[in-house]
Amino acid sequence: MTEDATQKFKPENLLHFTIEVFTHFNIPRDHATLAANILALSDIRGIDSHGVARLYSYVGLLSEGLINPNPKIRIVREKKSIATVDGDNGLGLVVGHYANEMAMDKSEKFGSGWISVCHSNHYGIASYYSLEALKRDMIGWSMTNTTKLVAPLWGAERMLGTNPIAIAFPGLKEPPVVIDLATSAAAYGKIEIAKRHQEDVPSGWIIDKEGGLSTQPEDMINGGALLPLGSTRDLGGHKGYALASMVDILTAVLSGANWGPFAPPFALRQEMPSRSVGKGIGHFFGAMEIDGFMEVQEFKKRIDEWISVMRNTKPAKGTGGVLIPGDPERMEEIKRKKDGIPLNASVIADLKTISEQTGIPFPGNLGQ
Amino acid sequence: MTEDATQKFKPENLLHFTIEVFTHFNIPRDHATLAANILALSDIRGIDSHGVARLYSYVGLLSEGLINPNPKIRIVREKKSIATVDGDNGLGLVVGHYANEMAMDKSEKFGSGWISVCHSNHYGIASYYSLEALKRDMIGWSMTNTTKLVAPLWGAERMLGTNPIAIAFPGLKEPPVVIDLATSAAAYGKIEIAKRHQEDVPSGWIIDKEGGLSTQPEDMINGGALLPLGSTRDLGGHKGYALASMVDILTAVLSGANWGPFAPPFALRQEMPSRSVGKGIGHFFGAMEIDGFMEVQEFKKRIDEWISVMRNTKPAKGTGGVLIPGDPERMEEIKRKKDGIPLNASVIADLKTISEQTGIPFPGNLGQ
Repeated sequence: MTEDATQKFKPENLLHFTIEVFTHFNIPRDHATLAANILALSDIRGIDSHGVARLYSYVGLLSEGLINPNPKIRIVREKKSIATVDGDNGLGLVVGHYANEMAMDKSEKFGSGWISVCHSNHYGIASYYSLEALKRDMIGWSMTNTTKLVAPLWGAERMLGTNPIAIAFPGLKEPPVVIDLATSAAAYGKIEIAKRHQEDVPSGWIIDKEGGLSTQPEDMINGGALLPLGSTRDLGGHKGYALASMVDILTAVLSGANWGPFAPPFALRQEMPSRSVGKGIGHFFGAMEIDGFMEVQEFKKRIDEWISVMRNTKPAKGTGGVLIPGDPERMEEIKRKKDGIPLNASVIADLKTISEQTGIPFPGNLGQ
Repeated sequence: MTEDATQKFKPENLLHFTIEVFTHFNIPRDHATLAANILALSDIRGIDSHGVARLYSYVGLLSEGLINPNPKIRIVREKKSIATVDGDNGLGLVVGHYANEMAMDKSEKFGSGWISVCHSNHYGIASYYSLEALKRDMIGWSMTNTTKLVAPLWGAERMLGTNPIAIAFPGLKEPPVVIDLATSAAAYGKIEIAKRHQEDVPSGWIIDKEGGLSTQPEDMINGGALLPLGSTRDLGGHKGYALASMVDILTAVLSGANWGPFAPPFALRQEMPSRSVGKGIGHFFGAMEIDGFMEVQEFKKRIDEWISVMRNTKPAKGTGGVLIPGDPERMEEIKRKKDGIPLNASVIADLKTISEQTGIPFPGNLGQ
């Protein structure tokens, strides 16, 4: 079986396995369930890089005592609709969930709520938090800083993470508009896949260690960097760099976390930063009550119409036409709910290693 | 004198001329002064497209009674930290200023303030509003929707504006980080300049009317469109489209303004939308008290360090190295305060036409 061949698994089985693994590492069952559900959501929506594939990294950090399995998450500073939260070095999935809840509770009280979080770890997919806000008729924002991978425009080294921005808006009959984007031109996973396939990558994704544009994945992996969204100065690379900076400042400078190149790694195999300028990594959550701006049904109807108009844009020749943000993940969700979650050989091997270490049985696959 | 040759003018003289022109069109002097100052800020920061060069368009709309010179700006719905504001079809520069003030006042009271605005017009540079927030030790957000120019990814027609996002963060000894970016790959002005020079534009800026990539400015001007930031699917064009959508929804769907392709034009010569789905165009302002998250001096010190670390990134070969968002405008400001504001022949001709219409003397230039 090659690296890219996949076997399919029942979502519930992977979820159950993940809960047991987290529990094995002394994470309270309610937290373990929460965290496992966020990874499962990622898998079901087709964002493979942020699902159960990450469990091995979480386990590595938990085994080494680098993540606190039972954090006391607390507000360290506050003024009505805003606050800074210290995640006590818990799982980012758990810290993120509770900080996002705090933002929504504030929103209920003050019309909006905004939480900057320090002392946390990798929090999964950014859109999980925005989707939670939809359940309460709120508009939910979510951002996080991440381990350095991206060069600022005209820089030749990794200084920023892929720092995603997520926000979601509910429709009435239409599904929600779900925006979730990394502020880099491409994901690091795509560079690794290209390397494995010995393929070139498009010009505009990466630079080599001198800062020159490259199409060779090795050039990025060996000391180069990802480019920000927009890629080059001509195509707006300064804008992607500015967006990544915005996320870095809101999540980490403002909360007291480690910003920029000092964000700690999300896996043991990664390089440790040269110094610490704060606590853990940072997140930023926002929630706004739709009802404070406009009657909720009216807003949802307007979103439905917006979706319908955008979807009916004249299609560009040779394409399937315009999609609505969130469409690809929703389509993948329908498929995966039916067919199961595909995992590749390397992820399966990692999970089997965890199974051996912990004695928790790894579930069987659904056949080919 | 060719179109691109410039003459230089004293900032104060242009400011004074602009105030008198606005006043001539029955705008109260305090509003006229406010609006003129925003255009002057744009000119001094080197954002020529949004400065006094726009006066001719404003005058055109005012002459035709399409902008209300004396708006009653009012809150139409509110819940503590959030509100929707109706700009009563005033100058966007005036409506924007007052709505931004409301966001800051709410922030003082509730830790943060968020205002979605309908029934407004073009509001100048997005960063003006974020810079105002710095004066009150707040983090200021500003967005607006604009006349359609941009195609959603895989679309072949103009459906969204260049919908900018601005946010600013104060330094202590360092100047602030000032982020202000259109969510399109390039500005429309650049396409017009390329056409005038009979030059090609980079691939990734525009599409023709069938949605195909083009490097011929005419292809965009004659029924084509700008591409969103990220340009193509490979380089992340879906992300720029998602960001433009976010801005469109927060500014216009949420406020009750005209969204997407229905945003009214900012100049008489532009096409009128096929229908109306709300009132005027929309803005979105946010303000957050830094002090509610972190002690203000501490935050500013952390920003100083962030700036210093980013500035010291190893430079990419053949470049001058990494800039901080806001650097180019700040450098231009220093230069223009000394040398004056350069205006090109076409802008000067427009301003002289206004001078003839109104009898307000157009100031002399500073010589070549």
